[in-house]
Amino acid sequence: MVANKKTGLQEFELIRWIQRQVGSSSHLTLGIGDDCSIQPQHAGQDLLTSTDLFIEGIHFKREWSNWYDLGRKAAAVNISDIAAMGGTPQSLYLGIGRPKDISDGEMEEFLSGFLAETGKYGAVLAGGDTCGSPGGLMISVTVQGTVTAGEALCRQGASYGDAIYVSGSLGDSALALQLLQCGQQPDSGLVERFHTPTPQVDLGQKLSKRQLATAMLDVSDGLLADLGHILTASGVGAELKMADLPLSQPFQKALQDDPGLIDLALAGGEDYELVFTSPLKDLAAQIDPPHTVTQIGVVSQEPGLRIHHPDGELYRCQRGGFDHFA
Amino acid sequence: MVANKKTGLQEFELIRWIQRQVGSSSHLTLGIGDDCSIQPQHAGQDLLTSTDLFIEGIHFKREWSNWYDLGRKAAAVNISDIAAMGGTPQSLYLGIGRPKDISDGEMEEFLSGFLAETGKYGAVLAGGDTCGSPGGLMISVTVQGTVTAGEALCRQGASYGDAIYVSGSLGDSALALQLLQCGQQPDSGLVERFHTPTPQVDLGQKLSKRQLATAMLDVSDGLLADLGHILTASGVGAELKMADLPLSQPFQKALQDDPGLIDLALAGGEDYELVFTSPLKDLAAQIDPPHTVTQIGVVSQEPGLRIHHPDGELYRCQRGGFDHFA
Repeated sequence: MVANKKTGLQEFELIRWIQRQVGSSSHLTLGIGDDCSIQPQHAGQDLLTSTDLFIEGIHFKREWSNWYDLGRKAAAVNISDIAAMGGTPQSLYLGIGRPKDISDGEMEEFLSGFLAETGKYGAVLAGGDTCGSPGGLMISVTVQGTVTAGEALCRQGASYGDAIYVSGSLGDSALALQLLQCGQQPDSGLVERFHTPTPQVDLGQKLSKRQLATAMLDVSDGLLADLGHILTASGVGAELKMADLPLSQPFQKALQDDPGLIDLALAGGEDYELVFTSPLKDLAAQIDPPHTVTQIGVVSQEPGLRIHHPDGELYRCQRGGFDHFA
Repeated sequence: MVANKKTGLQEFELIRWIQRQVGSSSHLTLGIGDDCSIQPQHAGQDLLTSTDLFIEGIHFKREWSNWYDLGRKAAAVNISDIAAMGGTPQSLYLGIGRPKDISDGEMEEFLSGFLAETGKYGAVLAGGDTCGSPGGLMISVTVQGTVTAGEALCRQGASYGDAIYVSGSLGDSALALQLLQCGQQPDSGLVERFHTPTPQVDLGQKLSKRQLATAMLDVSDGLLADLGHILTASGVGAELKMADLPLSQPFQKALQDDPGLIDLALAGGEDYELVFTSPLKDLAAQIDPPHTVTQIGVVSQEPGLRIHHPDGELYRCQRGGFDHFA
């Protein structure tokens, strides 16, 4: 889901171009443009499908991690798309473009991590493709999952007055990446969020099964970008309270030294938390066993997204979002 | 499906290693190891899924083709996996890792070709992912299709005494590639087979619907490799008549100058024809409208694959097969 920032808006334009070319189809409830496609099955089930690329030099550097964790992450970020629709992951398909300098042992480490992460959610590797790569390691992952028919949580559906929630904490992964890029070794809690993100499958399922949310995405491209997608698709706006952003202890510590780091929580990406809207004001109380969910704002009628700084001013984030396709 | 020859058997070992790690799953009729996975749906339908990588410098060079045809081919070789199970393609998912030196216009050409090929078989682009690429263009394609429950044609199922058939003609694509690699411009008929292969969707459907075949694959890695997969999975062997291999006019012409080119028909790969076994000896007469299908041998009890030269000797092909994952 995370894409190259350097190509910027060009990719969004490309996606819009693709969407214009692709007509609707009777076998699909939802095609391009959300975390997953939705294809009706029978017996009250919908099939969810999503595909991601995971490319060395774009999404990861091998010197920052180990092969096992890279395998876990490749599976996790894809499974997160199923979580973001409220579904249950079932089958993963893995394409591996393998450069010559990756040994069999390293490849097995990668695959062991991939399979461990897949198995953790009851899903299986169901197919794939391998070939050589003239560059770095190129991974493609496609995931299929199911959801009770009609219960998938899409990006449209947010209504004026809904509360805006996010699970877990924001910015840890982006802060870890920033430190790694500067040659520093991040705090173990931060670096785990970057190397081995946790798809919020259980929370997603609870929200969809009990129809507690009106719209949902996973935070892969950054809170502002992903919440922005929900707002645009739903034709609404948002008022966010910066003071209410959920931040981990290590993130808060770093923030004390550099207040500008708040932009990593707003737009850093790769959190793989869920951002969703709900008419319920006491949502956390309705989820059993409990998950950490924090209200960060409300849906407004006025289009656009306003971040309210504790000093009463509107805050302008300095980071752009990632681009993505579906 | 076509993989890097240079990594050789290493990849087969990797795939076997993966297969050993992956357990069975109640939601899958068939996982890793055939053209597609098979997942039971309801109302008498099975879901077929397959994924392929299509990587610049491994599967294609941009100077040999144009972007439109490359887009067509990326879709066609993936759809061919659905054809090889006897299914109907429905949804394609496209991952694009895009280097900076590909313009918007070139990307649109590629996508136009991809969408045109997809639409030709009544399928739609249903999702995807875009990102940058630090190397060449990296494409991943996942296809989903359906088949009447229980009617998918797999690699196992060939029986002693079955006739072995192949559709169309063999070796054209590999001959075109060989000429391109030597800096020559192949005959237009040959080069079309390489640039814009035709997935045999209609033939595959007819064979599965009427249960005319016992086992089937598409010829992506070369006849010997793909037929070899059928034989191994079915626990049988084969006797092939070299004189009966279906060869196009341009291929026959080239063969007159260099008899060794026959190995391209046996093991060149990228034919995207169907190789299948059937108890029927007059199969062509049973398919309406007719398709070109040629009996090239019979299934024997003795394991292994023997190629009978017209001079009465056994022929040994000098080319190795491609490796592949599923």
